[in-house]
Amino acid sequence: MRHIIDFNDMTMDEWNSLYSLCREIMANPMDFRDELRGKTMASLFFEPSTRTNFSFQTAMLKLGGGVFGFSDPQFSSVSKGETIKDTVIMCSSYADVIVMRTPWEGSAKAASLYSQCPVINAGDGGHLHPTQTLADLTTITELRGSASNLNIGLCGDLKNGRTVHSLIKALSRFENVSFFLISPRELAIPSYVRSFMNENGQKYVEVSNLESTMPQLDVLYMTRIQRERFSDPAEYERHRHAYILNAQKMKLARKDMIVMHPLPRVDEISQDVDGDPRAAYFKQAEYGLYIRMALLLSVTRDGKGLPEFVAPEVRPHACHNPRCITATNPYLPIINKQENGTVCCGYCDKEI
Amino acid sequence: MRHIIDFNDMTMDEWNSLYSLCREIMANPMDFRDELRGKTMASLFFEPSTRTNFSFQTAMLKLGGGVFGFSDPQFSSVSKGETIKDTVIMCSSYADVIVMRTPWEGSAKAASLYSQCPVINAGDGGHLHPTQTLADLTTITELRGSASNLNIGLCGDLKNGRTVHSLIKALSRFENVSFFLISPRELAIPSYVRSFMNENGQKYVEVSNLESTMPQLDVLYMTRIQRERFSDPAEYERHRHAYILNAQKMKLARKDMIVMHPLPRVDEISQDVDGDPRAAYFKQAEYGLYIRMALLLSVTRDGKGLPEFVAPEVRPHACHNPRCITATNPYLPIINKQENGTVCCGYCDKEI
Amino acid sequence: MRHIIDFNDMTMDEWNSLYSLCREIMANPMDFRDELRGKTMASLFFEPSTRTNFSFQTAMLKLGGGVFGFSDPQFSSVSKGETIKDTVIMCSSYADVIVMRTPWEGSAKAASLYSQCPVINAGDGGHLHPTQTLADLTTITELRGSASNLNIGLCGDLKNGRTVHSLIKALSRFENVSFFLISPRELAIPSYVRSFMNENGQKYVEVSNLESTMPQLDVLYMTRIQRERFSDPAEYERHRHAYILNAQKMKLARKDMIVMHPLPRVDEISQDVDGDPRAAYFKQAEYGLYIRMALLLSVTRDGKGLPEFVAPEVRPHACHNPRCITATNPYLPIINKQENGTVCCGYCDKEI
Repeated sequence: MRHIIDFNDMTMDEWNSLYSLCREIMANPMDFRDELRGKTMASLFFEPSTRTNFSFQTAMLKLGGGVFGFSDPQFSSVSKGETIKDTVIMCSSYADVIVMRTPWEGSAKAASLYSQCPVINAGDGGHLHPTQTLADLTTITELRGSASNLNIGLCGDLKNGRTVHSLIKALSRFENVSFFLISPRELAIPSYVRSFMNENGQKYVEVSNLESTMPQLDVLYMTRIQRERFSDPAEYERHRHAYILNAQKMKLARKDMIVMHPLPRVDEISQDVDGDPRAAYFKQAEYGLYIRMALLLSVTRDGKGLPEFVAPEVRPHACHNPRCITATNPYLPIINKQENGTVCCGYCDKEI
Repeated sequence: MRHIIDFNDMTMDEWNSLYSLCREIMANPMDFRDELRGKTMASLFFEPSTRTNFSFQTAMLKLGGGVFGFSDPQFSSVSKGETIKDTVIMCSSYADVIVMRTPWEGSAKAASLYSQCPVINAGDGGHLHPTQTLADLTTITELRGSASNLNIGLCGDLKNGRTVHSLIKALSRFENVSFFLISPRELAIPSYVRSFMNENGQKYVEVSNLESTMPQLDVLYMTRIQRERFSDPAEYERHRHAYILNAQKMKLARKDMIVMHPLPRVDEISQDVDGDPRAAYFKQAEYGLYIRMALLLSVTRDGKGLPEFVAPEVRPHACHNPRCITATNPYLPIINKQENGTVCCGYCDKEI
Repeated sequence: MRHIIDFNDMTMDEWNSLYSLCREIMANPMDFRDELRGKTMASLFFEPSTRTNFSFQTAMLKLGGGVFGFSDPQFSSVSKGETIKDTVIMCSSYADVIVMRTPWEGSAKAASLYSQCPVINAGDGGHLHPTQTLADLTTITELRGSASNLNIGLCGDLKNGRTVHSLIKALSRFENVSFFLISPRELAIPSYVRSFMNENGQKYVEVSNLESTMPQLDVLYMTRIQRERFSDPAEYERHRHAYILNAQKMKLARKDMIVMHPLPRVDEISQDVDGDPRAAYFKQAEYGLYIRMALLLSVTRDGKGLPEFVAPEVRPHACHNPRCITATNPYLPIINKQENGTVCCGYCDKEI
């Protein structure tokens, strides 16, 4: 049984066949409308996320499958103090695939230990969001022909942007990608991502000016800068405007550059950019739908199976991340892993 | 691509073919159960409306289609400050038809500018609710043979009743319809509706007494009188009882009169009327389901298409209606229209 | 038209054919994926109940049917003061089957009077929950070969446990079942259940010690002991631990005993029991899905029909149960029934 917890668990072969399946679906979506007839998807959204939720639901429906679940924790049994383990065992006995989104880092990994059906991570707190990465790679490959040999600008809040971190990791598996990390110093890329890039020989420069960087970019990936991130409101206002993309700045860009954004946007991309043929952020959402159709199709192909028995943990967990799933679910087996010399939690990947 | 924003955008030919499709469906609903297989409906309810919501969902399901969406704004990205434009672009890239209900007048019109699929207005604030009108016309035509040559009593709160205003406008296109406007003076029909009726040569009388009017009616359309509408509670109590329909008053009515109500009712129609064969309000809800099936079927037939590009508006909107969609979405293009000499907002139809 | 209000309305023949249909479905679920294509289920959950809700939704989807409804009263018209009668008339005109869960005792019975389609009681307050009983019987029959000739231990809160009371009543129709009622005195089985067992010649003993009883049991049915039930927190803590099932206590049980629980559990069954082959509570949830598929299939076979007209009640109801549906819906016809000499309310079954 194949769970999708982290994009980097996928081999390049898996990605390539997933992408070509996606292309087949885009070519003739109606040919696939009965593929999952009689099958069901459990959509477990412990926190709301309209876009991801709609994308997965539509993907399942277009494949002929059914959807049940919740998008609000207060109606779930979780509010009755049920463990994530019990919820997953129950739902996986009903469903053919589980799609889950939670605020707890490592929760999808935890769910995969107990599930009788494939688990797809639709976001586990600030940790991972592999299907956003799939949507991003699909967009880049569709619109630029390939994810290799590109100058990619990442702009805005690079410190807190999970999406951006995942994309950098994913692109480490493609050739000759150069990053332009465009952000205010306060929101620069975290050191652990910087060292990841160094270890993987990824080329990057850190700059603070968007205009001057524009001309060199093949892809510009925008993210939102949130007020909460700044202690000084004036600082926020100053940066905010500097990193707003508008028609004026688009004049500086290449004819074939594409503009991406995970959405929803507030005003980091001004509306006068929407008419520009290089604006790809809405297509990006649409590609997200088709790659998710491909994903649901491929993970459900092998059917269901009982997981190996996991004895409840008796030892205390060493992970100190308060947002880690182990903090609230102590029975989870202790899983540690080595990552470049340091010991990390096998759920949330934080250093122990 | 055909959007359904206002019933009066429809030609009589469109209405007639929609109605005959509805009759086909009612005759053999199961013949249509695969018509929309592989297609999806986005059900965007920015405010709850059980009846309309269930009616559309069931209609889509009975046609073999799938449904995704929300019935609670707090789970939608709107709460993250997303514009209605972005929500519509995203959802219309996933769906084959959008059904939307909002508290903002003109929102369906606004949505139609950006949608890649047909938009159906399921109620935009106090403005329009065309599918309620379709349900009403279907009920009248089914049970009275035609919507022409009828004496129609409209009873209760005629001042605030959107349903009633839409029905009057719709019936201006049928011949020889006479209205009996039965209400307390405080809740009389608004002057703009009165002038509409005058301009269109519609016959009407305004009366305050239900009993004395009963004998002349072919159709009695009841609406609720709400406490909030009165400054003086005693006034409310007095009127409320005067306009409650009960078995006693039904004795005064014609044998073939039908009683309609948009539902939900509280006590404006007493329960002892439910057993009366002339009580049509529950049938009305059922006809609403079938006419919505016909509507979904007909608007999705042409498939999807990209809307023309709309440049974001830079000029301020002149509309002073605080509930107009333009009040919160300034980027919307300015659309004004002439209505009998006065300039009106192209979204909410309010005079500028 | 067959409504499912109370398990005991079912004949043994009905139960047997339902169970064999369930076995057919379990053997080849995909053979049934088109059985209810074009049909819809109204899922009316006036109070949340994830497990029951998901189980019914999945059951309908796996049969090819569609689902609409709500799992939160605040979005339903009920909040607009609509009667349960009107909600049911409307929904039953849209749906092919209604599944309803409410906090009001007797509500499903009330609904069945007005519904055009079969009504399935998914729990009406503390009164009845027949499909839980169906799931329990299916589990026992599947795993023990039959529901006759068994020693069944019921452990925990036997005073407030609706599930347990229903199971006892249901098992009165099987031969040679002996009950071991294991609970603290504060939470002992109510006298009316005790007299039911006496009248029906059911064998039972009341004990307070779990360990000493374990060796005699074929089935152990666990329920949760809730803090709220005790005036003295210390009492609660003492009892709670005494009635927690763990691996240690399982050592005392027979090799072929099965452990059941309606779920969700909190800590009344410790996690170290989950790996024990005798732990049947998760299978129990799965059997619940299949027996509900069988139920939906069988009740929808006869199609829909208009109920007989019911005149609104003018006399006051004599039922004094504040949680009875008649307390808030006075128009309901008065229905009383004799139960072993005493007159009871025909909705909530409480003595009048």
